[in-house]
Amino acid sequence: MTTTPRVRLDPEARREQLLELGVRLFARVSLDELSIEKLAEAAGISRGLLYHYFGNKRDFHRAVVRKAADELIAVTAPSTGSDPMTRMIGSLERYVDYVEANREGYVSLVKGAAGGNEDLAEIYEEARAALTDRIFLTSTTEELAEVGLVDSPPVRLVIRGWSAMVEAMVLTWLDDPAVMTKQQLLTTCTLALPACVGTLGI
Amino acid sequence: MTTTPRVRLDPEARREQLLELGVRLFARVSLDELSIEKLAEAAGISRGLLYHYFGNKRDFHRAVVRKAADELIAVTAPSTGSDPMTRMIGSLERYVDYVEANREGYVSLVKGAAGGNEDLAEIYEEARAALTDRIFLTSTTEELAEVGLVDSPPVRLVIRGWSAMVEAMVLTWLDDPAVMTKQQLLTTCTLALPACVGTLGI
Repeated sequence: MTTTPRVRLDPEARREQLLELGVRLFARVSLDELSIEKLAEAAGISRGLLYHYFGNKRDFHRAVVRKAADELIAVTAPSTGSDPMTRMIGSLERYVDYVEANREGYVSLVKGAAGGNEDLAEIYEEARAALTDRIFLTSTTEELAEVGLVDSPPVRLVIRGWSAMVEAMVLTWLDDPAVMTKQQLLTTCTLALPACVGTLGI
Repeated sequence: MTTTPRVRLDPEARREQLLELGVRLFARVSLDELSIEKLAEAAGISRGLLYHYFGNKRDFHRAVVRKAADELIAVTAPSTGSDPMTRMIGSLERYVDYVEANREGYVSLVKGAAGGNEDLAEIYEEARAALTDRIFLTSTTEELAEVGLVDSPPVRLVIRGWSAMVEAMVLTWLDDPAVMTKQQLLTTCTLALPACVGTLGI
């Protein structure tokens, strides 16, 4: 090992910096294209040193995807105040912006998770659960009841379906944004939740 | 090639019979597990003869999945008479029954298509388009307008999302059918379509 980090950082901070760089690359390339080689090149260090930080390719991918998922969860955190539907529109807007800015990586995560990659499926499911559970965690029972949302297994099943709908609509919309304005997409996705839950009682 | 078919059929009919058998196997095993060997064994003929009919494993898989998708489209054909929503409940019921009876194969098709297998993605997308386009083909403009469905790009986008929702709900429900009755699942999925389309105008 002849190459040393350009900036002297403790190993933890250095690993974090490299991970950060991996996540930035992951925004523009799919997971298949995100090689240790590519990161080493972008960081200007040797592959050997990278393996020192991440063990192997699989661990590296897992660490990058985990961090990307944590970022997605963080940036879509609902703001406080206002009502549940307004908060949800805000969260969804940041979700759409995130997917738009990190499209290659996000699509490869969705594909990998749906295609049966167990590492990706686990991280994806955790992120999806975090994003949907939040509906119940950031609103009072009274606020939720006003839009027909009670926490019950049938409602959870509808929310599971709704999250698949939102993902499909956002990804399809990004392919052809002329179909509707972003505002209309956000409003439709948000109002679709109480609309679908509302059909349970019919 | 020393083995000959047990029953003398013209090659076309024989191929069709083997394909039929492949589709039956595909109901219970994933595509990965559906080997030429397995079909040869089930049909009681040699692998060589099977290759004669299907060329290679990829062509065999393609033929089986294509036929399975055609079957799904056929069994879910809406009945005539009644109103659009009643026809849709009937189609959805046969969709749920089909997925239940052909779960392994269907899940592997969905996974493969979502995971980036191009052959499967093509057949899956064709089937999905056929199933959703049907909404517009089997009802009059007046019938559709009554439930708020007009054929426009925004409505098509919502239908794209709705079909992802139905698929997710049906597959999740099959894992835990105690969450709601099948009738409630069908009603919720059906009513969710006009409910979601209805949010476009808000």
